[in-house]
Amino acid sequence: MKVGYLGPKSSFTFQAANELFEENKLIPFASIPLTIEHLENKTVDFAVVPIENSLEGSVHATVDYLFDQPTITVKEEIILPIRQQLLGTEAVKQPQKILSHPQALAQTKQYLKKYYPEVPLEAVSSTTFAAQYLAEHPKEKALAIASEKAAKEYHLKILASDIQDHTTNQTRFWVLSLDKKQQIASDLEDKKVTLFIILPANLPGALHQVLSAFAWRKIDLSKIESRPLKTYLGEYFFIVDIVLDENKALIKNAIAEIEALHAKVQWVGTYPINKFT
Amino acid sequence: MKVGYLGPKSSFTFQAANELFEENKLIPFASIPLTIEHLENKTVDFAVVPIENSLEGSVHATVDYLFDQPTITVKEEIILPIRQQLLGTEAVKQPQKILSHPQALAQTKQYLKKYYPEVPLEAVSSTTFAAQYLAEHPKEKALAIASEKAAKEYHLKILASDIQDHTTNQTRFWVLSLDKKQQIASDLEDKKVTLFIILPANLPGALHQVLSAFAWRKIDLSKIESRPLKTYLGEYFFIVDIVLDENKALIKNAIAEIEALHAKVQWVGTYPINKFT
Repeated sequence: MKVGYLGPKSSFTFQAANELFEENKLIPFASIPLTIEHLENKTVDFAVVPIENSLEGSVHATVDYLFDQPTITVKEEIILPIRQQLLGTEAVKQPQKILSHPQALAQTKQYLKKYYPEVPLEAVSSTTFAAQYLAEHPKEKALAIASEKAAKEYHLKILASDIQDHTTNQTRFWVLSLDKKQQIASDLEDKKVTLFIILPANLPGALHQVLSAFAWRKIDLSKIESRPLKTYLGEYFFIVDIVLDENKALIKNAIAEIEALHAKVQWVGTYPINKFT
Repeated sequence: MKVGYLGPKSSFTFQAANELFEENKLIPFASIPLTIEHLENKTVDFAVVPIENSLEGSVHATVDYLFDQPTITVKEEIILPIRQQLLGTEAVKQPQKILSHPQALAQTKQYLKKYYPEVPLEAVSSTTFAAQYLAEHPKEKALAIASEKAAKEYHLKILASDIQDHTTNQTRFWVLSLDKKQQIASDLEDKKVTLFIILPANLPGALHQVLSAFAWRKIDLSKIESRPLKTYLGEYFFIVDIVLDENKALIKNAIAEIEALHAKVQWVGTYPINKFT
């Protein structure tokens, strides 16, 4: 069994993948589309990619890829806390720059503003690259923001721990597979369902009607979000998450009712949630 | 009068700003937060920033800033078509790399896959920077994707025109100002309203109830989208756009009803749409 993931090794996606799969099964890829492409080509059996962060929102590269490729399904969800560390080869009083991925810089914005207001920030391709750069340029007075794992990997010192601005910074990851039929037919107990819903064009109040189909059955949506259809400005599809409980028998009726309204429903996946703290 | 905009000069935001303001009033800033900060500090009278692209979706830097700073309002909306050009100092048979902003690379993905499948793509900070780089490194066999304006600015040749994958690629820009009270009280004729709505926590079906307040008054929403509240995973606020027509007398009643449901409503702006083709 082979499991592709958004690399490099020591990325947060690696950590998520490693919670469910042994390290020797894991193969890193350079981007989200590349990771999922290897699943489609069957060079890997599963693909692990991020889907949403509690601060930055949905990961559009993942959402848009899955919308275009309805054969892919979600097998598992993994929720991980994201903790950012300030790393250096040694403690530096006046660093000349601080390197990290743009999302990590965004997640530590208040910390950086408080302690390093004058230091230029440099956006690089991954938090791991930032750590690697420090290890390879020990004479530059640079610091990096990256994971504890990256600190170990590149033998860097943690100068400040857990510097993310919000203690509740979490990311959802999805384990993707190609066995869609099996997933849809699987037991719904204690699981979550994600649907993509495309509303009929220019029908006023269509979203309200779709939500009514869930509401009167007391099916709670844990998330609803729109993404552009990439046709015209103002045309969207909706991502709907449903946590299943005693309502599960009614889901299929709700979907049938929505389809009768001429909305198109794409069943993305039925999956259990694996939450780590 | 001074108007800040997301620079550099020859950016698409410059073109949007220049449709409503004279060029000698315009001042470029390096990022969206910096542009809006100068409005807050009153060093400029207006700020022009992108809010949504038809392919890439909402511009989160703009949405999240406005959510945190309810004193800022929207005075005008500008809609521009986005056309990408392939630029070079001369025609190159086998370019060694193609430079552009990640969004422009995403918008021309199919074109690049068809004509330059083997050429490495390099993400840089702006389409303008890509054009500038070419002008300054004429001996490197590099190409850039940028606007027609950037081609003129840096004396580059347009090797292929309008190479964006979707002909309907458009971006919405907002002209921001600080005169919120005046904007809310202004005439609603032929205008659009944007609201941010925060639902009461953990109230099942709350979004459905909020949408009902609009639906039974036949107030059509032209957009609804969620953004993370940055508290916990799964907590969101909603961006709602309403195009005003004969329903305008009912908007305030709808908002009062929504507030009675203990949802919080933030009136972002009331503004006319300026659409260019």
